[in-house]
Amino acid sequence: MTIVKDLRDGDEFVGFYLIKESEVKQTNTTPPKDFMNVVLSDASGHVAGKLWDASASDKENLVPLTLVKVQGVAQLYREKLQVKIVRIRRTTEADGVQLTDFVRSAPVQPEVLLAGIHKAKDSIADREIRDVVDYCLNKVGDKLIHAPAAKSHHHAYYAGLVYHISRMLELGEFICKQRPFLNADLLKAGIILHDIAKPVEMVSELGIVSDYSNSGKLIGHISQASLWVAEAAMRLGMDPDSERIMALQHLVLSHHNLGEWGSPVQPQLAEALALHHIDSIDAKLQMIEDAFDTTGSHEAWTPQIRGLENKAFYRLTF
Amino acid sequence: MTIVKDLRDGDEFVGFYLIKESEVKQTNTTPPKDFMNVVLSDASGHVAGKLWDASASDKENLVPLTLVKVQGVAQLYREKLQVKIVRIRRTTEADGVQLTDFVRSAPVQPEVLLAGIHKAKDSIADREIRDVVDYCLNKVGDKLIHAPAAKSHHHAYYAGLVYHISRMLELGEFICKQRPFLNADLLKAGIILHDIAKPVEMVSELGIVSDYSNSGKLIGHISQASLWVAEAAMRLGMDPDSERIMALQHLVLSHHNLGEWGSPVQPQLAEALALHHIDSIDAKLQMIEDAFDTTGSHEAWTPQIRGLENKAFYRLTF
Amino acid sequence: MTIVKDLRDGDEFVGFYLIKESEVKQTNTTPPKDFMNVVLSDASGHVAGKLWDASASDKENLVPLTLVKVQGVAQLYREKLQVKIVRIRRTTEADGVQLTDFVRSAPVQPEVLLAGIHKAKDSIADREIRDVVDYCLNKVGDKLIHAPAAKSHHHAYYAGLVYHISRMLELGEFICKQRPFLNADLLKAGIILHDIAKPVEMVSELGIVSDYSNSGKLIGHISQASLWVAEAAMRLGMDPDSERIMALQHLVLSHHNLGEWGSPVQPQLAEALALHHIDSIDAKLQMIEDAFDTTGSHEAWTPQIRGLENKAFYRLTF
Amino acid sequence: MTIVKDLRDGDEFVGFYLIKESEVKQTNTTPPKDFMNVVLSDASGHVAGKLWDASASDKENLVPLTLVKVQGVAQLYREKLQVKIVRIRRTTEADGVQLTDFVRSAPVQPEVLLAGIHKAKDSIADREIRDVVDYCLNKVGDKLIHAPAAKSHHHAYYAGLVYHISRMLELGEFICKQRPFLNADLLKAGIILHDIAKPVEMVSELGIVSDYSNSGKLIGHISQASLWVAEAAMRLGMDPDSERIMALQHLVLSHHNLGEWGSPVQPQLAEALALHHIDSIDAKLQMIEDAFDTTGSHEAWTPQIRGLENKAFYRLTF
Amino acid sequence: MTIVKDLRDGDEFVGFYLIKESEVKQTNTTPPKDFMNVVLSDASGHVAGKLWDASASDKENLVPLTLVKVQGVAQLYREKLQVKIVRIRRTTEADGVQLTDFVRSAPVQPEVLLAGIHKAKDSIADREIRDVVDYCLNKVGDKLIHAPAAKSHHHAYYAGLVYHISRMLELGEFICKQRPFLNADLLKAGIILHDIAKPVEMVSELGIVSDYSNSGKLIGHISQASLWVAEAAMRLGMDPDSERIMALQHLVLSHHNLGEWGSPVQPQLAEALALHHIDSIDAKLQMIEDAFDTTGSHEAWTPQIRGLENKAFYRLTF
Amino acid sequence: MTIVKDLRDGDEFVGFYLIKESEVKQTNTTPPKDFMNVVLSDASGHVAGKLWDASASDKENLVPLTLVKVQGVAQLYREKLQVKIVRIRRTTEADGVQLTDFVRSAPVQPEVLLAGIHKAKDSIADREIRDVVDYCLNKVGDKLIHAPAAKSHHHAYYAGLVYHISRMLELGEFICKQRPFLNADLLKAGIILHDIAKPVEMVSELGIVSDYSNSGKLIGHISQASLWVAEAAMRLGMDPDSERIMALQHLVLSHHNLGEWGSPVQPQLAEALALHHIDSIDAKLQMIEDAFDTTGSHEAWTPQIRGLENKAFYRLTF
Repeated sequence: MTIVKDLRDGDEFVGFYLIKESEVKQTNTTPPKDFMNVVLSDASGHVAGKLWDASASDKENLVPLTLVKVQGVAQLYREKLQVKIVRIRRTTEADGVQLTDFVRSAPVQPEVLLAGIHKAKDSIADREIRDVVDYCLNKVGDKLIHAPAAKSHHHAYYAGLVYHISRMLELGEFICKQRPFLNADLLKAGIILHDIAKPVEMVSELGIVSDYSNSGKLIGHISQASLWVAEAAMRLGMDPDSERIMALQHLVLSHHNLGEWGSPVQPQLAEALALHHIDSIDAKLQMIEDAFDTTGSHEAWTPQIRGLENKAFYRLTF
Repeated sequence: MTIVKDLRDGDEFVGFYLIKESEVKQTNTTPPKDFMNVVLSDASGHVAGKLWDASASDKENLVPLTLVKVQGVAQLYREKLQVKIVRIRRTTEADGVQLTDFVRSAPVQPEVLLAGIHKAKDSIADREIRDVVDYCLNKVGDKLIHAPAAKSHHHAYYAGLVYHISRMLELGEFICKQRPFLNADLLKAGIILHDIAKPVEMVSELGIVSDYSNSGKLIGHISQASLWVAEAAMRLGMDPDSERIMALQHLVLSHHNLGEWGSPVQPQLAEALALHHIDSIDAKLQMIEDAFDTTGSHEAWTPQIRGLENKAFYRLTF
Repeated sequence: MTIVKDLRDGDEFVGFYLIKESEVKQTNTTPPKDFMNVVLSDASGHVAGKLWDASASDKENLVPLTLVKVQGVAQLYREKLQVKIVRIRRTTEADGVQLTDFVRSAPVQPEVLLAGIHKAKDSIADREIRDVVDYCLNKVGDKLIHAPAAKSHHHAYYAGLVYHISRMLELGEFICKQRPFLNADLLKAGIILHDIAKPVEMVSELGIVSDYSNSGKLIGHISQASLWVAEAAMRLGMDPDSERIMALQHLVLSHHNLGEWGSPVQPQLAEALALHHIDSIDAKLQMIEDAFDTTGSHEAWTPQIRGLENKAFYRLTF
Repeated sequence: MTIVKDLRDGDEFVGFYLIKESEVKQTNTTPPKDFMNVVLSDASGHVAGKLWDASASDKENLVPLTLVKVQGVAQLYREKLQVKIVRIRRTTEADGVQLTDFVRSAPVQPEVLLAGIHKAKDSIADREIRDVVDYCLNKVGDKLIHAPAAKSHHHAYYAGLVYHISRMLELGEFICKQRPFLNADLLKAGIILHDIAKPVEMVSELGIVSDYSNSGKLIGHISQASLWVAEAAMRLGMDPDSERIMALQHLVLSHHNLGEWGSPVQPQLAEALALHHIDSIDAKLQMIEDAFDTTGSHEAWTPQIRGLENKAFYRLTF
Repeated sequence: MTIVKDLRDGDEFVGFYLIKESEVKQTNTTPPKDFMNVVLSDASGHVAGKLWDASASDKENLVPLTLVKVQGVAQLYREKLQVKIVRIRRTTEADGVQLTDFVRSAPVQPEVLLAGIHKAKDSIADREIRDVVDYCLNKVGDKLIHAPAAKSHHHAYYAGLVYHISRMLELGEFICKQRPFLNADLLKAGIILHDIAKPVEMVSELGIVSDYSNSGKLIGHISQASLWVAEAAMRLGMDPDSERIMALQHLVLSHHNLGEWGSPVQPQLAEALALHHIDSIDAKLQMIEDAFDTTGSHEAWTPQIRGLENKAFYRLTF
Repeated sequence: MTIVKDLRDGDEFVGFYLIKESEVKQTNTTPPKDFMNVVLSDASGHVAGKLWDASASDKENLVPLTLVKVQGVAQLYREKLQVKIVRIRRTTEADGVQLTDFVRSAPVQPEVLLAGIHKAKDSIADREIRDVVDYCLNKVGDKLIHAPAAKSHHHAYYAGLVYHISRMLELGEFICKQRPFLNADLLKAGIILHDIAKPVEMVSELGIVSDYSNSGKLIGHISQASLWVAEAAMRLGMDPDSERIMALQHLVLSHHNLGEWGSPVQPQLAEALALHHIDSIDAKLQMIEDAFDTTGSHEAWTPQIRGLENKAFYRLTF
């Protein structure tokens, strides 16, 4: 059985895959025939496939998010690998495979990650800051646990967002120990809140983002999170103009660092600058780690990574 | 009597002025003597002045925002005009001058301008939009009427902000007539709300901004206004995620057009783009008009104007 | 009968269209067969079509700018809609359709728009300025009336340029009333002259630009218009270095505002800055208006608009 | 006798200098005394000077463009060298010095340079191109021979422009030999015409630019030169739309290469690109050569040079 | 016989070509058939070709870098010319054609160019500089003579690099004569060394670059050449911190002028600035010359040239 | 006794300070008198001072890097604090003060920091990498221990560089634990080597940089360090083209991330990207920490910090 990232030109293979997308098309021949474009995926990546002479039941059964068993041949087409599907069928219980095994996801259970985030929240000593964070975690609710952190930029998979927050909390804790002048409560809160509105900014299923929501486009997750902080303050009877609330707003608003990256103000609190850099280093190292994971081990270089100045990365051999 | 903008090198003059700033200094001579740096202003501009051998009563009386009668000589110093003060005294009732005559201000009474803004608000047909605008006008309250529109960029004087809003409302009304596909209610609301939080972003007196407030620096007037819209929706029992509220938020958030100018999202509603351009054209034409007004009529060119690509403007002679 | 912008995936339809482009191709089959790529258009937009097994008369008849009746099926292909042509024939008189109904054009008759422009020219009080404008209108002559304002950026259709100039004249008149310090004669002249050389910069038919002319590429419409102003001055016996002529040159040369947008000098007359902003706001609001008009009414968002920072715009539902 | 560029901190010196600027000021003492700020210059550079206790005849005599004999002391003030003038008097015939020896100028006689330019013009084989160049040389007339090439950027001295053109002609001739596909006539014409309007763009005396002219600011030398080419074509009865005239216009208009540097079109003829690069390399190497010439030979580094990315240059010791 | 650059839509032709790339593909028909994509080239350019119904011997014989005789038809496909191959066979001795005639190459024999470079090196008077240059020429050895100067930017063909260096040496010599303050030894050395590591930065055959090497990506030819200069100094027993070595390092490191173009330092020696400009003008004029050479003589405009601000260039007709 | 950062306008004070700079000047009075400009500093900052009527012994004794006892008055002058020196004398042994107490320095002993760096080096498991690091540490030798990390940007004080390296090693260790796919040996080596050539790039004493060295300007510390790595490989008999050496070169060369920040190549190894971000976060958080330390505790905002987008930072009060 071959996983997607190990397919090479000329390989004949059999394996289980998840249908990520599919569509029925007609050939240009007379008379025209129906064929299907099917994107096959597993946790290691995805690849485009062609099913010629699709039957009526193929067209009915091979819909997105279906698990299938496939026999096929991998071929290079315009420098991209494509699969010519020879045989394909839906999986049955007897195959013993399950959907979530075929979806890219964080390497830690989402429930464990979320519990860790709540624990970090509970460790915030300042009651007002803790209550605001708690309010916002409740506000986003179940949408948080499985959301990806981005459409494609970084942590773009199932539970990617809680994984990102968790690793940032670890790094934030270390840096607060190195630099006691930083307010650890505020930094923790900023880490938990900075992307808290992403699950409503994007429309996603199983970690796959299909689009941005209307409010995601017109307001954006940064301003949305700041509105939630304001809502928390009002609902919890706090002064919305207090320095604590202002500081939380500032961390959320400035965490993209520059106006051209979407932040209406630039970091002017030490914790805001720390937040931006912790966010950045975690996102970028994850991009490389994920690129190595989804690049065939026979490749010396990853594909170009858009979030990293469009650079490819080299896999050291020593 | 000479107004500031008409002073030229070598002029000996007598006139009434407002002290904008003052400080006591010591000369380097042995023994040192006290002298004063005094910035004199009137509605036409301001100029730096030196008062040598300042007496004890000078030092006590010549404080900022005092009206004075001055006899002096204008001199060029490092290509800037400076005044050597020969005689100076506080004005008395007998002089018949009053403070507000010496402050730059909008050419229309602030009360008239504010009434016009309220009238425009009342003409909004959509009840929810009108109520949000009303809430925010009440929220900013008395701070609105005398506020400048900016520290120095444009409309930087007494009642500059209400003047700016009023002219924008006129232009917005014209454009909505030209292009009926625009939602006039939404555009009116956007014009009134876009800078509504400026009076709390800046610390000003008599239209002169001394600094930005802490929240002005850490949150900014754009995000602040969006928080007020959210507050209005909550206090008025509206759905904060309704399309109307989302549209108002979008107009406020996007009105600076680009991220590097402070907008976290870019215009994606027709009314938002119209708002940005109406704001821009009114601010920029006012910059030129003000520059001509405060440039001596003997000068063919205004000074360089920072908000206009640092260009000087030429005064046509035909 | 279905207009282009209302076509959706799967629609079977019959309608009249204008052939915008066509070409004969061969299939890869053995033996190869001839088929045709035909771009169908009407006033609401255009769509690519395929005609398989094209007959000899098809190949002869289906040339660009021909009106045809089509029976077809709309299909998504690589996320773009395409038409599979089932039947196609040239229209006959009996069909009662005419070419100009199938071309996108300004919403007002070109003759009416041009008459308005001449009226505005006649209202210029300053004789020298009026004569220069008159000379340039005569110079461009018949080429003006049907020219688009741009290849694709804005007003890219039949009589788009005179429509653009007309709306700008309305807006300019309003702004001159708001701000009497502006020279209305000069602004009117600038509005009429700023794009006067566009008809010779681009090669167009029925409002569709096929290319830029050689002089359009090597000199550009901005410098070309300034050469016409100089020609006018010389032919009319005026002093080419007079302030009036210099001011007209300046308005033409600076109307793109920035060097990177093609202006060799930046606005340094109040009227030049007003001209730039009036040009900009009219072009941009028209882009949105046109995008809404050519986007199916079932779509919440327009396509991304290149001239508007590549943003899509949202259609409000209230 | 010490030339300006060799003055160092602490030097007591005597020498002849040209007064470049002067002004009378008053001290802050009681009673105030008159002193003078006098900028002294020679062909090697300039330096600021102070004359304390200026007499009535000093104030009358020490006007700009006067030659003087000075005894003084050089002192560092805020990291810049300044001269304390001990004695100063106007020169007399007996001193045997003359004005032009104290002005920076091209290292070749202006008349010789101009004759060379005319010779190059006469060598243009294409009659129409030659006639246009001839017309423009006549148009600028006497203003050309002593004009600097720029205010401060490069060749900013007496006859700097004809020197710049002459060196460019030499380099252009070499490159045309290396690359025969280039049209040598067109390139020669472009070199002579590209800056031909600079003498009317700037107001200068003895190679020192005091300001830009009104038309220099509002039209600029690039568009001005293109207007002259058009004028030449009209006066000489040529077709203004011929390819020759279009090519000349293009070379003039595109020679600054980029829009942000003032060119409304970018080079799209091989000769236009060659012209831009020949202009650039001659200007930049001259900047360094001049910087070394006006930097004391005891200095290892020149001052930062604005036109060269603000870099200082190092003087090799081998 | 037709050369590639003269092919036009509809041409039926016979000729000799070099196979630059080839691959075997299958059609979508049932049953599928094999066909081949073959890129045909000669010294004038290259074109994509399709060979339908490829035989077993076709698939075996038609490999890259094979010379073939082709009968075919040229057709436009998506605005690009494509060749439908009717007949194709490998050439035989009897055809009297040889590989190197079908490869784009410098217009002068590589051996002649290399000899000229060695002669320039030998003319360097300064022994240390000459020895370093000699060491580096030996170090790169045989890889230099046939290397292209770039992957596609400029001089992207057989012996392109030695041709580029040779022309730069000519131009450098001329400029040193014009400006004797330049150190001719240093400039010659810089010209020879600046791209000396390019042959190890890129993987090429017959002047065609297939990829960058690992060290080419991770270190780059600029830093690589500086490491070679250091190696030369160490191996030859020179002081690596001497001014001569430092100057050579500086010329190599700064020759791309700006950080964003890959130079870690900017030119701060006159010779370094001269080197940059000589490199630039030679590369850019060659881009145009090559574009004219590979554009059919019936075309008025070249394709857009990426290295020249993406501009197309016009071919003058006079 | 008052430390520099606590001085406020009007304070009369007595204290010990280090003279950082001094110069003798003359007044403009007749006769002129000598006075001194003296910059006073301690570990908390520095302030400009004036000593009027300087005696002969003052002029002789008050040289830079002298410890003095001062009685003075603090005064605002052009919005900057200045000290008027009333009495001043050199310190004697009896005062019990020592130079190093008055210099800003890292908060840990340099010897301790350096020992830690050596320990980290010794923990590198890969022998070749360890040997290269060891060679370079020996090469820079004693110059490393007291060097600042930058002229003014960050860690600009005594032992700032070893402090910076030490904190980066701690952070690097943490991140390697978080992300085991990173090569810890390589990252450690990169952290130690990345700025290893800074001590020869800058001329400094007691942590105060007076200038950049010639090689610092012409080669820069980045390329210099890469030359040292090459030297190490050659001297230690390693293959300079091995992947290990190439990787070390890459980390050094790419650590500024972008070309415009001085890196000739961009990070393309995971460790190189990690190195850049660790460098960046440590430098930037230190800038804020230092700004708070040197800003009077009565100030709510630090001055604007150049390395942080020129933003001031706010000191939280909770």
